[in-house]
Amino acid sequence: MKNIKLVLEYEGTNFSGWQKQEGLRTVESELEKALNRATKEDIEIIAAGRTDKKVHALGQVINFHTNADNIPGDNYKRLMDFLLPDDISIVESKEVDRDFHARFDAKRRRYKYIIYNRKLPNAIYRNFSFFFPHRLDIEKMKYAALDFIGEKDFTAFKVTDKNIKVNPIRKINLVHIERREDFILISIEGNSFLHNMVRIMVGTLIQIGAGKIGKDSIKEILESKNRTQAGITAGAEGLFLEKVFYDL
Amino acid sequence: MKNIKLVLEYEGTNFSGWQKQEGLRTVESELEKALNRATKEDIEIIAAGRTDKKVHALGQVINFHTNADNIPGDNYKRLMDFLLPDDISIVESKEVDRDFHARFDAKRRRYKYIIYNRKLPNAIYRNFSFFFPHRLDIEKMKYAALDFIGEKDFTAFKVTDKNIKVNPIRKINLVHIERREDFILISIEGNSFLHNMVRIMVGTLIQIGAGKIGKDSIKEILESKNRTQAGITAGAEGLFLEKVFYDL
Repeated sequence: MKNIKLVLEYEGTNFSGWQKQEGLRTVESELEKALNRATKEDIEIIAAGRTDKKVHALGQVINFHTNADNIPGDNYKRLMDFLLPDDISIVESKEVDRDFHARFDAKRRRYKYIIYNRKLPNAIYRNFSFFFPHRLDIEKMKYAALDFIGEKDFTAFKVTDKNIKVNPIRKINLVHIERREDFILISIEGNSFLHNMVRIMVGTLIQIGAGKIGKDSIKEILESKNRTQAGITAGAEGLFLEKVFYDL
Repeated sequence: MKNIKLVLEYEGTNFSGWQKQEGLRTVESELEKALNRATKEDIEIIAAGRTDKKVHALGQVINFHTNADNIPGDNYKRLMDFLLPDDISIVESKEVDRDFHARFDAKRRRYKYIIYNRKLPNAIYRNFSFFFPHRLDIEKMKYAALDFIGEKDFTAFKVTDKNIKVNPIRKINLVHIERREDFILISIEGNSFLHNMVRIMVGTLIQIGAGKIGKDSIKEILESKNRTQAGITAGAEGLFLEKVFYDL
Protein backbone atom coordinates (compact mmCIF):
# COMPACT_ATOMS: atom_id res chain seq x y z
CA MET A 1 0.00 0.00 0.00
CA LYS A 2 1.45 3.32 -1.07
CA ASN A 3 0.44 6.83 -0.04
CA ILE A 4 0.95 9.23 -2.95
CA LYS A 5 1.07 13.02 -2.71
CA LEU A 6 0.38 15.17 -5.76
CA VAL A 7 0.74 18.94 -6.18
CA LEU A 8 -1.49 20.21 -8.94
CA GLU A 9 -2.48 23.31 -10.81
CA TYR A 10 -5.73 23.90 -12.62
CA GLU A 11 -7.72 26.57 -14.36
CA GLY A 12 -11.07 26.73 -12.56
CA THR A 13 -12.97 28.39 -15.42
CA ASN A 14 -14.56 25.28 -16.87
CA PHE A 15 -15.04 23.32 -13.65
CA SER A 16 -18.02 23.34 -11.31
CA GLY A 17 -15.54 23.62 -8.46
CA TRP A 18 -13.49 20.97 -6.71
CA GLN A 19 -16.00 18.61 -5.18
CA LYS A 20 -17.47 15.62 -6.95
CA GLN A 21 -21.11 16.16 -7.92
CA GLU A 22 -23.34 13.96 -10.03
CA GLY A 23 -23.43 15.11 -13.65
CA LEU A 24 -21.03 18.03 -13.21
CA ARG A 25 -17.48 18.44 -14.44
CA THR A 26 -15.40 18.97 -11.29
CA VAL A 27 -11.67 18.81 -10.60
CA GLU A 28 -12.08 15.97 -8.13
CA SER A 29 -14.08 13.82 -10.52
CA GLU A 30 -11.64 14.36 -13.41
CA LEU A 31 -8.72 13.48 -11.13
CA GLU A 32 -10.50 10.45 -9.76
CA LYS A 33 -11.27 9.19 -13.26
CA ALA A 34 -7.62 9.56 -14.27
CA LEU A 35 -6.32 7.93 -11.07
CA ASN A 36 -8.77 5.05 -11.41
CA ARG A 37 -7.50 4.44 -14.92
CA ALA A 38 -3.87 4.65 -13.80
CA THR A 39 -4.25 2.34 -10.80
CA LYS A 40 -7.23 0.22 -11.89
CA GLU A 41 -8.70 0.83 -8.43
CA ASP A 42 -11.36 3.01 -6.88
CA ILE A 43 -9.30 5.88 -5.56
CA GLU A 44 -10.41 8.06 -2.66
CA ILE A 45 -8.84 11.53 -2.89
CA ILE A 46 -7.99 13.71 0.11
CA ALA A 47 -7.47 17.38 -0.81
CA ALA A 48 -5.87 20.21 1.19
CA GLY A 49 -8.76 22.49 0.36
CA ARG A 50 -11.89 22.63 -1.73
CA THR A 51 -12.08 25.34 -4.33
CA ASP A 52 -15.29 26.85 -5.70
CA LYS A 53 -16.42 27.12 -9.29
CA LYS A 54 -13.98 29.27 -11.36
CA VAL A 55 -11.33 29.35 -8.60
CA HIS A 56 -7.88 28.34 -9.84
CA ALA A 57 -5.05 26.48 -8.17
CA LEU A 58 -1.30 26.78 -8.58
CA GLY A 59 -0.46 24.44 -5.72
CA GLN A 60 -3.42 22.35 -4.60
CA VAL A 61 -2.21 19.30 -2.68
CA ILE A 62 -3.88 15.90 -2.59
CA ASN A 63 -3.01 12.43 -1.39
CA PHE A 64 -4.44 8.96 -1.95
CA HIS A 65 -3.68 5.40 -0.96
CA THR A 66 -3.20 2.75 -3.60
CA ASN A 67 -2.22 -0.88 -3.92
CA ALA A 68 -0.80 -0.23 -7.37
CA ASP A 69 2.70 -0.95 -6.06
CA ASN A 70 4.13 -1.21 -9.56
CA ILE A 71 3.82 2.56 -10.12
CA PRO A 72 6.65 4.56 -8.49
CA GLY A 73 5.41 7.77 -6.82
CA ASP A 74 7.41 9.99 -9.17
CA ASN A 75 5.76 8.45 -12.21
CA TYR A 76 2.29 9.81 -11.54
CA LYS A 77 3.40 13.20 -12.82
CA ARG A 78 4.04 11.96 -16.33
CA LEU A 79 1.36 9.27 -16.29
CA MET A 80 -1.36 11.72 -15.28
CA ASP A 81 -0.25 14.11 -18.01
CA PHE A 82 -1.65 11.57 -20.50
CA LEU A 83 -4.83 10.89 -18.58
CA LEU A 84 -5.90 14.35 -17.42
CA PRO A 85 -7.61 17.08 -19.43
CA ASP A 86 -5.53 20.14 -20.42
CA ASP A 87 -6.88 22.36 -17.67
CA ILE A 88 -5.37 20.25 -14.87
CA SER A 89 -1.67 19.55 -14.57
CA ILE A 90 0.50 17.81 -12.04
CA VAL A 91 3.45 19.83 -10.78
CA GLU A 92 4.91 17.26 -8.41
CA SER A 93 4.26 13.66 -7.42
CA LYS A 94 5.90 11.45 -4.81
CA GLU A 95 5.36 8.66 -2.36
CA VAL A 96 4.98 9.89 1.24
CA ASP A 97 4.62 8.37 4.73
CA ARG A 98 1.51 6.27 4.98
CA ASP A 99 -0.02 8.58 7.57
CA PHE A 100 0.44 11.82 5.57
CA HIS A 101 -2.96 13.55 5.21
CA ALA A 102 -3.20 16.43 2.72
CA ARG A 103 -5.92 18.18 4.70
CA PHE A 104 -5.21 17.54 8.37
CA ASP A 105 -1.44 17.90 8.07
CA ALA A 106 -1.61 21.23 6.23
CA LYS A 107 -0.16 23.91 8.51
CA ARG A 108 -0.92 26.93 6.37
CA ARG A 109 -2.53 27.81 3.06
CA ARG A 110 -1.62 30.74 0.86
CA TYR A 111 -4.08 32.27 -1.61
CA LYS A 112 -3.36 34.84 -4.27
CA TYR A 113 -6.02 37.21 -5.50
CA ILE A 114 -5.72 39.27 -8.69
CA ILE A 115 -7.79 42.41 -9.21
CA TYR A 116 -7.84 44.04 -12.61
CA ASN A 117 -8.22 47.72 -11.85
CA ARG A 118 -8.72 49.64 -15.06
CA LYS A 119 -11.75 51.46 -16.45
CA LEU A 120 -12.63 48.81 -18.99
CA PRO A 121 -12.33 45.03 -18.84
CA ASN A 122 -9.34 43.05 -20.05
CA ALA A 123 -9.93 40.39 -22.72
CA ILE A 124 -6.82 38.35 -21.97
CA TYR A 125 -7.11 38.16 -18.17
CA ARG A 126 -10.88 37.99 -17.92
CA ASN A 127 -10.89 34.47 -16.45
CA PHE A 128 -7.84 35.09 -14.25
CA SER A 129 -8.67 38.35 -12.47
CA PHE A 130 -11.58 40.20 -10.90
CA PHE A 131 -12.45 43.32 -12.86
CA PHE A 132 -13.02 46.40 -10.72
CA PRO A 133 -13.33 49.60 -12.76
CA HIS A 134 -12.96 52.26 -10.03
CA ARG A 135 -9.47 53.27 -9.03
CA LEU A 136 -8.47 51.66 -5.73
CA ASP A 137 -6.31 53.37 -3.11
CA ILE A 138 -4.01 50.55 -2.13
CA GLU A 139 -2.45 52.50 0.74
CA LYS A 140 -5.83 52.38 2.49
CA MET A 141 -6.12 48.68 1.71
CA LYS A 142 -2.67 47.94 3.13
CA TYR A 143 -3.45 49.91 6.28
CA ALA A 144 -6.78 48.14 6.81
CA ALA A 145 -5.39 44.67 6.05
CA LEU A 146 -3.22 44.74 9.18
CA ASP A 147 -6.39 44.30 11.25
CA PHE A 148 -6.83 40.82 9.76
CA ILE A 149 -3.51 39.60 11.19
CA GLY A 150 -3.67 37.30 14.20
CA GLU A 151 -6.09 34.76 15.58
CA LYS A 152 -9.66 36.07 15.24
CA ASP A 153 -13.27 35.05 14.94
CA PHE A 154 -14.05 35.29 11.21
CA THR A 155 -17.81 34.65 11.41
CA ALA A 156 -18.47 37.96 9.60
CA PHE A 157 -16.24 36.77 6.73
CA LYS A 158 -17.90 33.50 5.82
CA VAL A 159 -20.94 32.39 3.89
CA THR A 160 -23.97 32.42 6.17
CA ASP A 161 -25.15 28.84 6.49
CA LYS A 162 -27.11 27.85 9.56
CA ASN A 163 -26.81 24.16 8.88
CA ILE A 164 -23.07 24.00 9.16
CA LYS A 165 -21.33 24.42 12.51
CA VAL A 166 -17.66 25.18 12.15
CA ASN A 167 -15.16 26.74 14.45
CA PRO A 168 -14.90 30.34 13.16
CA ILE A 169 -11.54 31.07 14.79
CA ARG A 170 -8.81 31.32 12.15
CA LYS A 171 -5.27 32.61 12.25
CA ILE A 172 -4.04 34.91 9.48
CA ASN A 173 -0.30 35.47 9.36
CA LEU A 174 0.14 37.44 6.15
CA VAL A 175 -1.73 39.88 3.93
CA HIS A 176 0.44 41.41 1.24
CA ILE A 177 -0.91 43.92 -1.28
CA GLU A 178 0.88 45.44 -4.26
CA ARG A 179 0.04 47.19 -7.48
CA ARG A 180 1.64 46.10 -10.78
CA GLU A 181 0.46 48.39 -13.53
CA ASP A 182 -3.28 47.76 -13.88
CA PHE A 183 -3.24 44.75 -11.57
CA ILE A 184 -3.50 44.62 -7.80
CA LEU A 185 -2.10 41.42 -6.30
CA ILE A 186 -3.16 40.33 -2.83
CA SER A 187 -1.57 37.40 -1.01
CA ILE A 188 -3.31 36.04 2.06
CA GLU A 189 -1.85 33.30 4.20
CA GLY A 190 -3.41 31.61 7.23
CA ASN A 191 -3.79 28.27 8.96
CA SER A 192 -7.08 27.54 7.22
CA PHE A 193 -10.04 29.39 5.79
CA LEU A 194 -13.82 29.38 6.12
CA HIS A 195 -16.05 29.08 3.07
CA ASN A 196 -15.63 32.20 0.89
CA MET A 197 -13.47 33.81 3.56
CA VAL A 198 -10.69 34.97 1.22
CA ARG A 199 -13.19 36.38 -1.26
CA ILE A 200 -15.09 38.31 1.44
CA MET A 201 -11.82 39.62 2.92
CA VAL A 202 -10.79 40.80 -0.55
CA GLY A 203 -14.26 42.23 -1.29
CA THR A 204 -14.06 44.23 1.94
CA LEU A 205 -10.55 45.46 1.10
CA ILE A 206 -11.78 46.50 -2.35
CA GLN A 207 -14.59 48.57 -0.83
CA ILE A 208 -12.08 50.13 1.57
CA GLY A 209 -9.83 50.99 -1.39
CA ALA A 210 -12.83 52.51 -3.16
CA GLY A 211 -13.73 54.60 -0.10
CA LYS A 212 -17.06 52.82 0.49
CA ILE A 213 -15.97 51.28 3.81
CA GLY A 214 -13.77 53.13 6.32
CA LYS A 215 -10.16 51.99 6.62
CA ASP A 216 -10.57 51.48 10.38
CA SER A 217 -13.69 49.31 10.07
CA ILE A 218 -12.27 45.80 9.98
CA LYS A 219 -11.99 45.47 13.76
CA GLU A 220 -15.68 46.37 14.17
CA ILE A 221 -16.75 44.08 11.34
CA LEU A 222 -14.90 41.17 12.95
CA GLU A 223 -16.46 41.96 16.33
CA SER A 224 -19.97 42.16 14.82
CA LYS A 225 -19.74 38.49 13.75
CA ASN A 226 -22.30 39.51 11.16
CA ARG A 227 -21.77 38.77 7.45
CA THR A 228 -23.84 41.78 6.40
CA GLN A 229 -21.31 44.14 8.02
CA ALA A 230 -18.48 42.95 5.75
CA GLY A 231 -18.05 43.84 2.08
CA ILE A 232 -18.95 42.06 -1.15
CA THR A 233 -17.76 38.57 -2.06
CA ALA A 234 -15.11 39.27 -4.69
CA GLY A 235 -15.41 37.17 -7.87
CA ALA A 236 -14.15 33.59 -7.92
CA GLU A 237 -12.19 34.17 -11.16
CA GLY A 238 -9.56 36.28 -9.33
CA LEU A 239 -8.75 33.64 -6.72
CA PHE A 240 -5.83 31.18 -6.82
CA LEU A 241 -4.96 28.56 -4.20
CA GLU A 242 -1.24 29.24 -4.40
CA LYS A 243 0.50 26.98 -1.93
CA VAL A 244 -0.16 24.62 0.96
CA PHE A 245 2.49 24.38 3.66
CA TYR A 246 3.39 21.23 5.60
CA ASP A 247 6.01 20.47 8.24
CA LEU A 248 9.30 19.30 6.72
CA MET B 1 -17.11 61.90 -41.91
CA LYS B 2 -14.89 60.80 -39.03
CA ASN B 3 -11.85 58.55 -39.05
CA ILE B 4 -11.71 56.56 -35.80
CA LYS B 5 -8.67 54.71 -34.48
CA LEU B 6 -9.09 51.88 -31.97
CA VAL B 7 -6.42 49.97 -30.06
CA LEU B 8 -7.65 46.57 -29.02
CA GLU B 9 -6.70 43.45 -27.15
CA TYR B 10 -8.11 39.99 -27.66
CA GLU B 11 -7.62 36.41 -26.67
CA GLY B 12 -7.19 34.46 -29.89
CA THR B 13 -8.11 31.05 -28.46
CA ASN B 14 -11.72 30.97 -29.61
CA PHE B 15 -11.33 32.88 -32.88
CA SER B 16 -10.56 31.51 -36.32
CA GLY B 17 -8.02 34.31 -36.67
CA TRP B 18 -8.49 37.92 -37.63
CA GLN B 19 -9.90 37.87 -41.12
CA LYS B 20 -13.59 37.69 -41.94
CA GLN B 21 -14.62 34.28 -43.27
CA GLU B 22 -18.08 33.00 -43.99
CA GLY B 23 -19.45 30.95 -41.12
CA LEU B 24 -16.43 31.35 -38.84
CA ARG B 25 -16.05 33.36 -35.66
CA THR B 26 -13.25 35.83 -36.38
CA VAL B 27 -12.08 38.99 -34.62
CA GLU B 28 -12.81 41.13 -37.67
CA SER B 29 -16.36 39.87 -38.03
CA GLU B 30 -17.16 40.34 -34.32
CA LEU B 31 -15.76 43.87 -34.45
CA GLU B 32 -17.60 44.67 -37.64
CA LYS B 33 -20.89 43.46 -36.16
CA ALA B 34 -20.39 45.63 -33.08
CA LEU B 35 -19.35 48.69 -35.13
CA ASN B 36 -22.29 48.25 -37.47
CA ARG B 37 -24.62 48.22 -34.48
CA ALA B 38 -22.94 51.27 -32.94
CA THR B 39 -22.93 53.36 -36.12
CA LYS B 40 -25.90 51.84 -38.01
CA GLU B 41 -23.64 51.71 -41.06
CA ASP B 42 -21.65 49.12 -42.98
CA ILE B 43 -18.21 49.63 -41.54
CA GLU B 44 -15.03 48.71 -43.41
CA ILE B 45 -12.20 47.95 -40.99
CA ILE B 46 -8.51 48.54 -41.72
CA ALA B 47 -6.18 46.62 -39.39
CA ALA B 48 -2.47 47.08 -38.74
CA GLY B 49 -1.91 43.35 -39.08
CA ARG B 50 -3.80 40.12 -39.48
CA THR B 51 -3.41 37.54 -36.77
CA ASP B 52 -3.84 33.79 -37.22
CA LYS B 53 -6.11 31.43 -35.31
CA LYS B 54 -5.20 31.36 -31.58
CA VAL B 55 -2.83 34.35 -31.83
CA HIS B 56 -3.56 37.04 -29.24
CA ALA B 57 -3.29 40.81 -29.36
CA LEU B 58 -2.44 43.33 -26.66
CA GLY B 59 -2.27 46.28 -29.01
CA GLN B 60 -3.83 45.59 -32.40
CA VAL B 61 -4.68 48.88 -34.14
CA ILE B 62 -7.56 49.46 -36.53
CA ASN B 63 -9.26 52.43 -38.12
CA PHE B 64 -12.54 52.99 -39.90
CA HIS B 65 -14.45 55.85 -41.48
CA THR B 66 -17.96 56.65 -40.35
CA ASN B 67 -20.70 59.22 -40.89
CA ALA B 68 -21.98 58.65 -37.35
CA ASP B 69 -20.91 62.17 -36.40
CA ASN B 70 -22.93 62.06 -33.19
CA ILE B 71 -20.49 59.60 -31.58
CA PRO B 72 -17.34 61.29 -30.23
CA GLY B 73 -14.18 59.27 -30.94
CA ASP B 74 -13.48 58.71 -27.25
CA ASN B 75 -16.88 57.12 -26.72
CA TYR B 76 -16.25 54.02 -28.81
CA LYS B 77 -14.21 52.58 -25.97
CA ARG B 78 -17.16 52.40 -23.60
CA LEU B 79 -19.78 51.81 -26.28
CA MET B 80 -17.93 48.82 -27.73
CA ASP B 81 -17.56 47.36 -24.25
CA PHE B 82 -21.32 46.72 -24.34
CA LEU B 83 -21.37 45.41 -27.89
CA LEU B 84 -18.31 43.18 -28.03
CA PRO B 85 -17.86 39.66 -26.67
CA ASP B 86 -15.70 39.23 -23.55
CA ASP B 87 -12.65 38.05 -25.43
CA ILE B 88 -12.16 41.37 -27.25
CA SER B 89 -11.67 44.66 -25.46
CA ILE B 90 -10.92 48.18 -26.55
CA VAL B 91 -7.94 49.81 -24.86
CA GLU B 92 -8.09 53.17 -26.58
CA SER B 93 -10.36 55.00 -29.02
CA LYS B 94 -10.04 58.40 -30.66
CA GLU B 95 -10.75 60.42 -33.73
CA VAL B 96 -7.72 60.84 -35.99
CA ASP B 97 -6.80 62.69 -39.21
CA ARG B 98 -8.96 61.56 -42.10
CA ASP B 99 -5.97 60.13 -43.96
CA PHE B 100 -4.65 57.99 -41.07
CA HIS B 101 -4.34 54.37 -42.25
CA ALA B 102 -3.76 51.70 -39.58
CA ARG B 103 -1.86 49.46 -41.97
CA PHE B 104 0.09 51.71 -44.32
CA ASP B 105 1.05 54.25 -41.66
CA ALA B 106 2.39 51.64 -39.24
CA LYS B 107 6.15 52.16 -38.91
CA ARG B 108 6.94 49.16 -36.75
CA ARG B 109 5.20 46.22 -35.11
CA ARG B 110 6.28 44.50 -31.92
CA TYR B 111 5.36 40.92 -31.15
CA LYS B 112 5.82 39.08 -27.88
CA TYR B 113 6.23 35.33 -27.76
CA ILE B 114 5.90 33.26 -24.58
CA ILE B 115 7.48 29.80 -24.30
CA TYR B 116 6.60 27.62 -21.36
CA ASN B 117 9.76 25.64 -20.73
CA ARG B 118 9.13 23.03 -18.09
CA LYS B 119 8.96 19.23 -18.33
CA LEU B 120 5.21 19.03 -18.07
CA PRO B 121 2.51 21.35 -19.42
CA ASN B 122 0.95 24.23 -17.49
CA ALA B 123 -2.82 24.19 -17.01
CA ILE B 124 -3.18 27.92 -16.37
CA TYR B 125 -1.08 29.23 -19.27
CA ARG B 126 -1.92 26.55 -21.80
CA ASN B 127 -3.66 28.99 -24.17
CA PHE B 128 -1.14 31.79 -23.60
CA SER B 129 2.20 30.09 -24.11
CA PHE B 130 3.91 27.49 -26.26
CA PHE B 131 4.85 24.42 -24.28
CA PHE B 132 8.36 23.16 -24.95
CA PRO B 133 9.47 20.42 -22.53
CA HIS B 134 13.23 20.32 -23.20
CA ARG B 135 15.41 22.80 -21.36
CA LEU B 136 16.46 25.65 -23.65
CA ASP B 137 19.84 27.38 -23.50
CA ILE B 138 18.84 31.00 -23.83
CA GLU B 139 22.42 32.23 -24.12
CA LYS B 140 22.65 30.38 -27.45
CA MET B 141 19.30 31.85 -28.49
CA LYS B 142 20.40 35.40 -27.64
CA TYR B 143 23.64 34.93 -29.55
CA ALA B 144 21.87 33.56 -32.62
CA ALA B 145 19.10 36.18 -32.56
CA LEU B 146 21.57 38.96 -33.38
CA ASP B 147 21.78 37.58 -36.92
CA PHE B 148 18.15 38.54 -37.48
CA ILE B 149 18.87 42.24 -36.87
CA GLY B 150 18.92 44.49 -39.92
CA GLU B 151 17.31 44.54 -43.35
CA LYS B 152 17.28 41.00 -44.79
CA ASP B 153 15.49 38.70 -47.17
CA PHE B 154 13.21 36.58 -44.98
CA THR B 155 12.00 34.15 -47.66
CA ALA B 156 13.23 31.21 -45.56
CA PHE B 157 11.08 32.45 -42.66
CA LYS B 158 7.68 32.59 -44.28
CA VAL B 159 4.95 30.16 -45.25
CA THR B 160 5.68 28.72 -48.67
CA ASP B 161 2.90 29.90 -50.95
CA LYS B 162 3.59 30.06 -54.65
CA ASN B 163 0.44 32.03 -55.40
CA ILE B 164 1.35 35.06 -53.35
CA LYS B 165 4.11 37.41 -54.45
CA VAL B 166 5.33 39.61 -51.65
CA ASN B 167 8.50 41.55 -51.14
CA PRO B 168 10.48 39.32 -48.74
CA ILE B 169 12.80 42.10 -47.53
CA ARG B 170 11.99 43.02 -43.92
CA LYS B 171 13.85 45.04 -41.33
CA ILE B 172 14.16 43.70 -37.80
CA ASN B 173 15.35 46.18 -35.21
CA LEU B 174 14.96 44.26 -31.96
CA VAL B 175 15.03 40.70 -30.67
CA HIS B 176 15.01 40.51 -26.89
CA ILE B 177 15.05 37.20 -25.01
CA GLU B 178 14.78 36.63 -21.28
CA ARG B 179 13.92 33.82 -18.88
CA ARG B 180 11.46 34.38 -16.04
CA GLU B 181 11.22 31.23 -13.99
CA ASP B 182 9.66 28.60 -16.27
CA PHE B 183 8.83 31.11 -19.01
CA ILE B 184 10.99 32.41 -21.82
CA LEU B 185 9.83 35.75 -23.20
CA ILE B 186 10.88 36.83 -26.68
CA SER B 187 10.15 40.30 -28.08
CA ILE B 188 10.61 40.85 -31.78
CA GLU B 189 10.19 44.23 -33.41
CA GLY B 190 10.41 45.09 -37.10
CA ASN B 191 8.87 47.25 -39.79
CA SER B 192 6.50 44.50 -40.88
CA PHE B 193 6.34 40.73 -41.00
CA LEU B 194 5.67 38.00 -43.55
CA HIS B 195 3.07 35.31 -42.92
CA ASN B 196 4.18 33.15 -39.95
CA MET B 197 7.54 34.93 -39.90
CA VAL B 198 7.60 35.52 -36.13
CA ARG B 199 6.56 31.95 -35.40
CA ILE B 200 9.25 30.49 -37.71
CA MET B 201 11.89 32.83 -36.25
CA VAL B 202 10.89 31.67 -32.75
CA GLY B 203 10.73 28.02 -33.82
CA THR B 204 14.26 28.31 -35.20
CA LEU B 205 15.49 29.98 -32.00
CA ILE B 206 13.87 27.19 -29.96
CA GLN B 207 15.72 24.54 -31.97
CA ILE B 208 18.93 26.51 -31.50
CA GLY B 209 18.28 26.65 -27.74
CA ALA B 210 17.67 22.90 -27.78
CA GLY B 211 20.91 22.26 -29.67
CA LYS B 212 19.19 20.91 -32.79
CA ILE B 213 20.31 23.80 -35.00
CA GLY B 214 23.74 25.43 -34.68
CA LYS B 215 23.88 28.89 -33.11
CA ASP B 216 25.70 30.26 -36.15
CA SER B 217 23.18 28.94 -38.68
CA ILE B 218 20.81 31.87 -39.07
CA LYS B 219 22.94 33.67 -41.64
CA GLU B 220 23.03 30.58 -43.83
CA ILE B 221 19.33 29.91 -43.42
CA LEU B 222 18.54 33.47 -44.49
CA GLU B 223 20.86 33.13 -47.48
CA SER B 224 19.30 29.81 -48.52
CA LYS B 225 15.89 31.53 -49.01
CA ASN B 226 14.50 28.07 -48.41
CA ARG B 227 11.79 27.46 -45.82
CA THR B 228 12.94 23.90 -45.21
CA GLN B 229 16.28 25.18 -43.88
CA ALA B 230 14.64 27.09 -41.02
CA GLY B 231 13.14 25.56 -37.87
CA ILE B 232 9.62 24.60 -36.86
CA THR B 233 6.70 27.02 -36.83
CA ALA B 234 6.22 27.68 -33.11
CA GLY B 235 2.61 27.38 -31.89
CA ALA B 236 0.15 30.22 -32.42
CA GLU B 237 -0.96 30.16 -28.76
CA GLY B 238 2.35 31.71 -27.61
CA LEU B 239 2.16 34.73 -29.93
CA PHE B 240 0.92 38.20 -29.01
CA LEU B 241 0.75 41.25 -31.28
CA GLU B 242 1.98 43.63 -28.59
CA LYS B 243 2.20 47.08 -30.10
CA VAL B 244 2.03 48.93 -33.41
CA PHE B 245 4.12 52.09 -33.74
CA TYR B 246 3.15 55.19 -35.73
CA ASP B 247 4.79 58.56 -36.23
CA LEU B 248 3.73 61.09 -33.55
